[in-house]
Amino acid sequence: MSAWVLPDHIADVLPSEARHIEELRRSLLDVASTYGYELVIPPLMEYLESLLTGTGEALDLQTFKTVDQISGRTVGIRADSTQQVARIDAHLLNRAGVTRLCYCGAALHTKPERPYASREPLQFGAEIYGHAGLEADLEAVELALDCVHKASVTGPVVVMGDVRIARSLMGGVMTGMDALRAVHMALAAKDASTLAELTKDFPTSSRDGLMALLELYGDASVLDAARERLAAFPAALKVLDELQWLGQQVQGRAQVAYDLADLRGYAYYSGMRFSVYADRCNDALVRGGRYDEVGAAYGRNRPAAGFSLDIKQLVTVAAQRALQTAILAPWSDDSALRDVIRQLRASGQVIIQTLPGSASEADEFRCSQRLVLVQGQWQLQAIA
Amino acid sequence: MSAWVLPDHIADVLPSEARHIEELRRSLLDVASTYGYELVIPPLMEYLESLLTGTGEALDLQTFKTVDQISGRTVGIRADSTQQVARIDAHLLNRAGVTRLCYCGAALHTKPERPYASREPLQFGAEIYGHAGLEADLEAVELALDCVHKASVTGPVVVMGDVRIARSLMGGVMTGMDALRAVHMALAAKDASTLAELTKDFPTSSRDGLMALLELYGDASVLDAARERLAAFPAALKVLDELQWLGQQVQGRAQVAYDLADLRGYAYYSGMRFSVYADRCNDALVRGGRYDEVGAAYGRNRPAAGFSLDIKQLVTVAAQRALQTAILAPWSDDSALRDVIRQLRASGQVIIQTLPGSASEADEFRCSQRLVLVQGQWQLQAIA
Repeated sequence: MSAWVLPDHIADVLPSEARHIEELRRSLLDVASTYGYELVIPPLMEYLESLLTGTGEALDLQTFKTVDQISGRTVGIRADSTQQVARIDAHLLNRAGVTRLCYCGAALHTKPERPYASREPLQFGAEIYGHAGLEADLEAVELALDCVHKASVTGPVVVMGDVRIARSLMGGVMTGMDALRAVHMALAAKDASTLAELTKDFPTSSRDGLMALLELYGDASVLDAARERLAAFPAALKVLDELQWLGQQVQGRAQVAYDLADLRGYAYYSGMRFSVYADRCNDALVRGGRYDEVGAAYGRNRPAAGFSLDIKQLVTVAAQRALQTAILAPWSDDSALRDVIRQLRASGQVIIQTLPGSASEADEFRCSQRLVLVQGQWQLQAIA
Repeated sequence: MSAWVLPDHIADVLPSEARHIEELRRSLLDVASTYGYELVIPPLMEYLESLLTGTGEALDLQTFKTVDQISGRTVGIRADSTQQVARIDAHLLNRAGVTRLCYCGAALHTKPERPYASREPLQFGAEIYGHAGLEADLEAVELALDCVHKASVTGPVVVMGDVRIARSLMGGVMTGMDALRAVHMALAAKDASTLAELTKDFPTSSRDGLMALLELYGDASVLDAARERLAAFPAALKVLDELQWLGQQVQGRAQVAYDLADLRGYAYYSGMRFSVYADRCNDALVRGGRYDEVGAAYGRNRPAAGFSLDIKQLVTVAAQRALQTAILAPWSDDSALRDVIRQLRASGQVIIQTLPGSASEADEFRCSQRLVLVQGQWQLQAIA
């Protein structure tokens, strides 16, 4: 096999896309900064037990494992950073008040998350710790929407659900963990026949409620329909009120929809969850919600909400941005030319020097001017 | 062992340092951009053979290996990006003219490169392809110095050498590859007794020349001393002239020194090499030089020069920067407040909302103002 062949779903990012990714990366970190989120950089590699603490099977299967030569222990390359950032909040910062953290870095997945997805997503995320109220959930949704707007993505739709609805429906059901997990998976896959089979011995009200969830997706009318069909479950009704409040707050900034059976993804969600979809994008751009138990493994079970997105996915639907302009200059050891070039570069201008006997190629700059020697002075001249 | 213990030489980067790293990262990419370098993002993971093509044993030992579940083949997590960027130049861009590329991303090392080094450096680097002349070597050194200056590092010293000097001294010596490698290692370690033993059967002129290299380090007078002691090797004399020219060009921007036995690091160097040292830093901040053969494995053996540095190392000696200021605001569903906050954030201001019943903590912002309601209007008020 040739030396330049890369593994499936792994790719070099070439200049045009890399420039867009870098611009998006900065915009998103800057947006998070305007909300007061502080950047942290968790490591790429950790002992496997730490990395997978309380995250469930899906993350385990996604994680590359190898051996640490120093300790002889198994380490994993992170597939997700939520758990890592929770560790930082719980163990290293250990603040009493509300703490807002954001991160942006590569992760590796053993299998692509969706068709055409990279196995090396560039994860950007933000987490707010220490506030149990809905205001934190709302801040997560609003920040996520600001990020999506910053990328000039068209037609954003926020889809909200809550894992507590399905949990409340199964509250009194006597069954094992495996069966519960199977029910969750059937709901997530909207697999009615499997769900019917799995719940055939459940109390009728639970069973009917769970089956109803499969159809409870769409606009705000879903909440009214849900109130009717889940009337026997007061805990579920309370959650519906919360979703309604959140939807009202977000309305006007993006279209809002609900999907009460959406339970996909990692197991750490504990309450409201949301996704953001957009035009030309057949999977969610953003996934987030509340995961209050995520810090428990690190000895500090405090409220948490947040979201993450893959900048490599976002860039495919983000608006293109203009090329940076550049100035061409010849190469010479004339100190006057070198001084001019140095000054222009210090002021942020791009100067591409043409080295003696070689042409220069740069696709990601638009060369609009050149430095030429006119009557002993180096001057800028427009390129026709 | 506790869930929050990380592997040795692996660490979380907390907000204060993360902010500095992000600021440096942007500055360095912006400096490279002012020279016309285009960003590329090579992957974290590749098939092992591709990753290690033509790089020698040092990189192999530094590389974490694991198995790709999709192909069943061994993959490596990159320990260095030079080879990857050469592949992009040779195979993907395949341009005829001079191509300038830069990159910035994490790498993983099985062992720390120096005491206290992170096993997860944040590598920033720049490479110029397609020009064999010294102007490209000079551009690499100048760009590296601009990067170091951008970090406000004090007392930068450029130390130059050239692998062709040692090679020319061993030109006519009949010995095996292993013996040559051992000589290189003894030179790199400045190990006189081992070098004397290894070269005891070499022709006298070669042996004396190699032994002389051990003492040929210091300021520009080293070049004169070298001309005397290596007079029997015309190829070495030509290289000394080149080093002198480069030194003269750089002089005035940084202190210049020479180390003609410096052969440390990866095996891909083919000509001039340089390091940048600075105050308060006991190892090189930057390593670079010429590696013309680096693209050969990808079917395109064209000239290349460049450098790389670890931003996590650079940040330890970079000047500290001021905190960003922030505005505190209460939480309220008053639409007037929400509008004010949205506008301020859109203009780049940081607004930290205090959620009901919870205090906020943010160390990396200096809260200098707060939003208060005065006679029905939300106004900014200085914090005493």
